[in-house]
Amino acid sequence: MALPLLKIIKVGGGVLEDPDSLTHFLDEFALIDEPKILIHGGGREASKLSQKLNIPTKIIEGRRVTDVDTLKLVTMVYAGLINKNVVAGLQKRGINSLGLTGADLRLIISQKRPPSNGIDFGFVGDIEYVNTQVLADLINKGITPVIAPLTYSVNGDLLNTNADSIASHIGVALSQTFNIELTYCFELPGVLYDPDDLTSVIPVIDDEIVISLIQDGVIKGGMIPKVTNALKAVNNGINKIIIKKFSEISEINAGTQIVKHFDK
Amino acid sequence: MALPLLKIIKVGGGVLEDPDSLTHFLDEFALIDEPKILIHGGGREASKLSQKLNIPTKIIEGRRVTDVDTLKLVTMVYAGLINKNVVAGLQKRGINSLGLTGADLRLIISQKRPPSNGIDFGFVGDIEYVNTQVLADLINKGITPVIAPLTYSVNGDLLNTNADSIASHIGVALSQTFNIELTYCFELPGVLYDPDDLTSVIPVIDDEIVISLIQDGVIKGGMIPKVTNALKAVNNGINKIIIKKFSEISEINAGTQIVKHFDK
Repeated sequence: MALPLLKIIKVGGGVLEDPDSLTHFLDEFALIDEPKILIHGGGREASKLSQKLNIPTKIIEGRRVTDVDTLKLVTMVYAGLINKNVVAGLQKRGINSLGLTGADLRLIISQKRPPSNGIDFGFVGDIEYVNTQVLADLINKGITPVIAPLTYSVNGDLLNTNADSIASHIGVALSQTFNIELTYCFELPGVLYDPDDLTSVIPVIDDEIVISLIQDGVIKGGMIPKVTNALKAVNNGINKIIIKKFSEISEINAGTQIVKHFDK
Repeated sequence: MALPLLKIIKVGGGVLEDPDSLTHFLDEFALIDEPKILIHGGGREASKLSQKLNIPTKIIEGRRVTDVDTLKLVTMVYAGLINKNVVAGLQKRGINSLGLTGADLRLIISQKRPPSNGIDFGFVGDIEYVNTQVLADLINKGITPVIAPLTYSVNGDLLNTNADSIASHIGVALSQTFNIELTYCFELPGVLYDPDDLTSVIPVIDDEIVISLIQDGVIKGGMIPKVTNALKAVNNGINKIIIKKFSEISEINAGTQIVKHFDK
């Protein structure tokens, strides 16, 4: 029997902080007829608030170092401001949604990352377990989970957790119950050959091509973990992964598709 | 057939902002064996953050005037910082909890209060509807809802809403399904005859006594709406209402009980 389709959409903080792009994104997301899960970031909004509050922002290898004050800040911004505005925006569009962190219903358990190579990321979590039953129950009731990038450690801490990583972990965990299509949405139309040319979208990336793209410096910075995580996820049961622009969710051939391996 | 007992606990922001009293409160709350709902405030923490962000705090008749910036602020503090820390703290104590605002699952629908007598409270909501089915389903699954004082207007707005009011509306709405015991917890041992004497707890207040207590100035300020709301709620189906200290939840005879009418 074919598994039912489930669309998982991850959207970055850059899209959410601008009211126009947020509206546009929510309109597009609400048009998805299939069961769906939304996972959102929020780093830019958090950086803006930390400036106002004079809490220094420290980012190492694209990951935010999260001390006690920063944890409070991201809990406010991710689980409060962004999550609840997205939930309200979806309700307005007729999508019955529920905002969640990993602590709610023990949805996502993670381990506090131990310091390594002299770097202590603080209250940052690496995912250990996704409560698939909770998500499947919500989806089967027609509820759309909206997940903030905070997970829960069994010690009782909230932990700041990369939203891309949450999206791929949830996708892999649910891939035995659903046919998973995972979309990473951001401001660009896909992975680009030339960052200055928005028409230079790479249509397909597989585990061979990715190596040369990284070596040639085409894929770099924050795009490296995004693409390599995506490749790992397609190797672990996610059927389809696309990286595309937030305003093109419904356009079937838009963006960059990540596949295990394709014949050239 | 007797209705099953449901304990609704409302806790004020003053208890939650101090780490020691928060720990004490969560320990007490976790000890409640019966099905339970937690509703929390958070005004003091919001006022602290608004000072840091130079957002002026304006309170009229005990209610916060909520402009766009203040709405963002309370969404961060109530639905993010406080709600998720309480949820994590309860999970740590083995209580499977779910943090909610009125927008989540369309739990609490309210109407934006229209300006009256020259006062515009802004994004403040007066409750119109509580989705009792959602709450009953959660409770019947053994889940403890943790509700932040934000509701949802059908126009798509989040609205700042008095937590005492949320507690009594939820209690009244659920009183046909459950035998409701509602406890308002705060820093004092109950309603006091003499504010300087913590042993002067008034044990019982009914709809007759309350009038003279208000006339004599014993009940004043923010305690007036608390007590009059409570009286309205016992007249609308809530079985038992107690106002007591957060550290005395499990003490049966502690605090001030609000009853319809008792023979003197």
